[in-house]
Amino acid sequence: MNPVQMEQSEEASAKRKTGIVRFGVIGYGYWGPNVVRNLESLDDSKVVMICDKSPAARKRIQNLYSNIQVTAESENIMTSSEIDAVAVVTPVWTHYELAKTALENGKHVFVEKPFTSNVAQAEELIELAEKKNLKIMVDHTFLFTGAVKKIAQLVKEGALGKLYYYDSTRVNLGLFQHDVNVLWDLAPHDLSIMDHLIDEKPEAIVATGQSHLNSHEDVAYMTVYFPNKVIAHINVNWLSPVKVRTTLIGGEKKMLVWNDLEADEKIKIYDKGVNINNQQGVYKLLVNYRSGDMWAPQIEQIEALRQELGYFLNCISSNQTPTNDGHAGLRVVKMLEAATVSLGKRGELVYV
Amino acid sequence: MNPVQMEQSEEASAKRKTGIVRFGVIGYGYWGPNVVRNLESLDDSKVVMICDKSPAARKRIQNLYSNIQVTAESENIMTSSEIDAVAVVTPVWTHYELAKTALENGKHVFVEKPFTSNVAQAEELIELAEKKNLKIMVDHTFLFTGAVKKIAQLVKEGALGKLYYYDSTRVNLGLFQHDVNVLWDLAPHDLSIMDHLIDEKPEAIVATGQSHLNSHEDVAYMTVYFPNKVIAHINVNWLSPVKVRTTLIGGEKKMLVWNDLEADEKIKIYDKGVNINNQQGVYKLLVNYRSGDMWAPQIEQIEALRQELGYFLNCISSNQTPTNDGHAGLRVVKMLEAATVSLGKRGELVYV
Amino acid sequence: MNPVQMEQSEEASAKRKTGIVRFGVIGYGYWGPNVVRNLESLDDSKVVMICDKSPAARKRIQNLYSNIQVTAESENIMTSSEIDAVAVVTPVWTHYELAKTALENGKHVFVEKPFTSNVAQAEELIELAEKKNLKIMVDHTFLFTGAVKKIAQLVKEGALGKLYYYDSTRVNLGLFQHDVNVLWDLAPHDLSIMDHLIDEKPEAIVATGQSHLNSHEDVAYMTVYFPNKVIAHINVNWLSPVKVRTTLIGGEKKMLVWNDLEADEKIKIYDKGVNINNQQGVYKLLVNYRSGDMWAPQIEQIEALRQELGYFLNCISSNQTPTNDGHAGLRVVKMLEAATVSLGKRGELVYV
Amino acid sequence: MNPVQMEQSEEASAKRKTGIVRFGVIGYGYWGPNVVRNLESLDDSKVVMICDKSPAARKRIQNLYSNIQVTAESENIMTSSEIDAVAVVTPVWTHYELAKTALENGKHVFVEKPFTSNVAQAEELIELAEKKNLKIMVDHTFLFTGAVKKIAQLVKEGALGKLYYYDSTRVNLGLFQHDVNVLWDLAPHDLSIMDHLIDEKPEAIVATGQSHLNSHEDVAYMTVYFPNKVIAHINVNWLSPVKVRTTLIGGEKKMLVWNDLEADEKIKIYDKGVNINNQQGVYKLLVNYRSGDMWAPQIEQIEALRQELGYFLNCISSNQTPTNDGHAGLRVVKMLEAATVSLGKRGELVYV
Repeated sequence: MNPVQMEQSEEASAKRKTGIVRFGVIGYGYWGPNVVRNLESLDDSKVVMICDKSPAARKRIQNLYSNIQVTAESENIMTSSEIDAVAVVTPVWTHYELAKTALENGKHVFVEKPFTSNVAQAEELIELAEKKNLKIMVDHTFLFTGAVKKIAQLVKEGALGKLYYYDSTRVNLGLFQHDVNVLWDLAPHDLSIMDHLIDEKPEAIVATGQSHLNSHEDVAYMTVYFPNKVIAHINVNWLSPVKVRTTLIGGEKKMLVWNDLEADEKIKIYDKGVNINNQQGVYKLLVNYRSGDMWAPQIEQIEALRQELGYFLNCISSNQTPTNDGHAGLRVVKMLEAATVSLGKRGELVYV
Repeated sequence: MNPVQMEQSEEASAKRKTGIVRFGVIGYGYWGPNVVRNLESLDDSKVVMICDKSPAARKRIQNLYSNIQVTAESENIMTSSEIDAVAVVTPVWTHYELAKTALENGKHVFVEKPFTSNVAQAEELIELAEKKNLKIMVDHTFLFTGAVKKIAQLVKEGALGKLYYYDSTRVNLGLFQHDVNVLWDLAPHDLSIMDHLIDEKPEAIVATGQSHLNSHEDVAYMTVYFPNKVIAHINVNWLSPVKVRTTLIGGEKKMLVWNDLEADEKIKIYDKGVNINNQQGVYKLLVNYRSGDMWAPQIEQIEALRQELGYFLNCISSNQTPTNDGHAGLRVVKMLEAATVSLGKRGELVYV
Repeated sequence: MNPVQMEQSEEASAKRKTGIVRFGVIGYGYWGPNVVRNLESLDDSKVVMICDKSPAARKRIQNLYSNIQVTAESENIMTSSEIDAVAVVTPVWTHYELAKTALENGKHVFVEKPFTSNVAQAEELIELAEKKNLKIMVDHTFLFTGAVKKIAQLVKEGALGKLYYYDSTRVNLGLFQHDVNVLWDLAPHDLSIMDHLIDEKPEAIVATGQSHLNSHEDVAYMTVYFPNKVIAHINVNWLSPVKVRTTLIGGEKKMLVWNDLEADEKIKIYDKGVNINNQQGVYKLLVNYRSGDMWAPQIEQIEALRQELGYFLNCISSNQTPTNDGHAGLRVVKMLEAATVSLGKRGELVYV
Repeated sequence: MNPVQMEQSEEASAKRKTGIVRFGVIGYGYWGPNVVRNLESLDDSKVVMICDKSPAARKRIQNLYSNIQVTAESENIMTSSEIDAVAVVTPVWTHYELAKTALENGKHVFVEKPFTSNVAQAEELIELAEKKNLKIMVDHTFLFTGAVKKIAQLVKEGALGKLYYYDSTRVNLGLFQHDVNVLWDLAPHDLSIMDHLIDEKPEAIVATGQSHLNSHEDVAYMTVYFPNKVIAHINVNWLSPVKVRTTLIGGEKKMLVWNDLEADEKIKIYDKGVNINNQQGVYKLLVNYRSGDMWAPQIEQIEALRQELGYFLNCISSNQTPTNDGHAGLRVVKMLEAATVSLGKRGELVYV
């Protein structure tokens, strides 16, 4: 499914009206409230029950949504016959058990990134969903932002030419995660974007990093080697005094800078490049630098999560496979697993 | 020698007046003219002869400096009895031969960074200079900038607390070097600064990267593991549409951002950090974020190269060993050599 | 009342608990929802009824607040015996009538800026409120932001020294107002801040500007002359392609830049200045520039409107006069009225 | 003469080779060295003699240019038969006398901006030059920058549509001038650019400002009313802690921001605007905001002064009238004179 189809899905869904998808949502911490708010505001979905262990969270839900049931036990969601789909908005180490139970109970699953804690879990869930003809969508929200959709369009159209590199810096102070390191926390964003933009499968991964405050790495670097000389690099850091969300993407024809912290002009495309003439021997390279205009296209201003959930509803009602399905989630987990092995050896090349 | 001593050296030299140091300069391309201009403007030095293979370069010299001899043969500099010191401002693969000949002819040597093409060459030159009681200064110019001197002062004073990481991004479009890859071209700046700021010796290095246009890597990443959980990372790229010169340095007490492209406010020091209480078990970490004022100290506005050359004159006249001597140059070359091995294996951990 | 007192008011109010202030809110367009949300979330206030002519607005209220009455007629608020105070969140030309009716009905008034359409109206309302011992607070929200509170503290402490100038640029694309020009729309922010920061009363005003699309000026400039050589200038523009919210404040000792669009580092204080020695005659002025560190103090992150409304509750319960009372509102309207006269003559000096 | 012609002039001149123009340069302070360096490097000109009262300045000249004569008396330049043209690079109050003497002695004149201290002087010099068939060029250097040439091209092509406003901020700390106020020092840049960009003649001017340190205004604001609702505003300030060089230009179709301190992307053109439908009465205005792409065209990277002087040589050899002739200088002085009158009355509308 290409970006245009992704965009049209919400509208299509609104027209078809094949019925309301009834959701149970597990987890109402940082991200869960956004999932609930969007599911409630979309025409084709409603939230029936929300599960959270925290009494304070359940109280907040009741104040805002008098018509949604709350529970401390996910079992109540799993066994409810009034629920068609489960949104798993919990820490990664719980994803596998919750998603598995939901699928076993015949419910579609929308699950936070990263999909699972390891490759085996992801593969099992994919198989289970396929057997039961249920949908899995992994919440790679960034794919539904105006910025990434514009970048994907430029890459697919060939505007950048052959890709050279993808280089992302994603650093800020905190938030410390208790159960994963900084790679598992922040890199899935870039890994899912790379998976979306780069056609080839990654060949090998090298990760380095360091923990300073507890056993989890709070600073980490990850290189991904792709075929055809494409290289990707991700710099993630929980201990940076400033917030940075900047990605450089270099291609043969054009290069772009995506600064996600810019209110406007998030993406700048540079008509810059290098033409090299190698015929005259290594010490007589003829290098020409091209330098031209810069262009910042207008970016669609939509809430990505809303669009993603609308697309999920549409995939369910029309029995389509989402772009960001379990396989996409698995590909990201594969890279994280390889990175973990490499990081454990302080930087070995690990084939994916 | 500490930064304060480095700063005072020019003044001291001016007072002592133990005689003019007469220079031969080899190489008048991009950087050579700056070396010549500064040596000519300092009170204690003068340039007697400049060597460049290019007739156009020699013509430019003659137009600007009617009283400086020009030559196409470095031999004329090496054998001149009117020359006390040789500045080697040529591609790295020529450094060893030129510096060796200069030392054998009893001349002090000021040599561009990186010092040599490999560790063995550097060790041989150091030994030769010591035997002949001659000075080697490797042109680690950044150590003499107002910004790095301020950072060094903050680190030495303990203002940042225990160091956590050094993370530098040094990217722009070109200039392609014909004889070295982007690591050898751009990383020596950061490696010499790290060598100056971090007391411990590096333990191991991992480098990754990719060449796109010819056989030399144009995009590369380098992680340096130091003892005590200090980690350094350098991102260098000849194919970036934008120029970036930003270094984050994180410490236990404070963190700083050095943006060398800012006209003012090059260094911003953040009273930010994390206090972590690990006693309650991994899932009950008590993390406190500190967030306070930011402070941009005034930075000394001087030409770093002028100060460095004044310091070199002073080291010669007072028979001191420069901070940025052959050993400092060797330490940088050691890291580059390890990085080269790692890069060749696409990211193996290589002990220094 | 100084800034510290303003800050403490909400807390004090929470402790005293002298009873809930019951509000009627008139106007639920752009800003009204924020007033309602904050009044509902504060402990000492509640909203009883909201008036808006628009059925859609009333529908939105009912969806969000099932326990708040809605009405299309302000009369229902004015005559309700269950309402103690009225918030007037409507276009400026309606302020006088609504505030007057509310005061006549014995209700305190919280009214949007600018206070009224002219000086006579403001004076009448002040007199009426004093006669009835009721409070007027004009919604000069910016006074309650962390940024303006920090600036006020610096000015009061004398950190900047004697003030030289206040120079503000407040431009963006739209939003076009139908009933007022760009001065009446955007300048009240700066005028209320200047009124708060500068002890002296303004002497005279010059305003220039131009309308391009209809009869209201969409670009305007306003100079305010204060005693003691203090000068203020405001640049407002509805037709700017970029949003700018930048104020320079120059003093004898220090100067500051307030960029309200910065997420962090909204205020930067520069240890810069000029020392001038005038004794040697006009052509021999001895000018010394001071240049030192820059410092960005941490700014309190609170919702200004919440703090302002808490302060209003406190003023009511403790029978205090708010800093931003009718007199403050009047002083701003006086400046706007003078500016309007000046603008009508394309830039005459008008004494306030 | 349009921008393209201006650009081609140097090349044309190089081809024609009608002879070398021999210059005398008066004034070797801040700007004079740049004039000398460029006149020396151009093929069709050379500097014969330089006059400066300061012995130190004359010493600097002799060190750099052994073949140029120096003098403390401008008379020696005026009466030399070896000099064809005089560059007057001195304070504005000396321009009239020096330019007049030069013209009387049959020499072309290149004179710093602002042209003269008042309108009468400018008119007299223009008349004298015309009578003697000599050229006057006023050094409106900005017209020859890549940025202004690009803006002029966009305006002439109609890319911005009908002009709405020109709004410039030109502030920084110092340099205090002893003989003029900040308007005469900094505003001529913008006035000459406006004169170049806007076809209509200015109608009236309002200027406000304040002196703080001596009798000259160090902060000033200037509004220029043009026909057809075009308004211009200039904000100049010698007491700003930060340097700003930003100009907004708004048009019916597009708007641009010129930030002269940006290394790249000096000019950003926004496809933004307002469509207004006024038919439904003032309270029912139908306002549509357009928001589209942003585009930063590549800007020619040339030394403006070199191009300007090349153009002057070409005007002399081909007997053309420069765009920036005495009449252009006079138009700028007229605006400054009107601003001075207005400023003296703290903001009266003064017709030009």
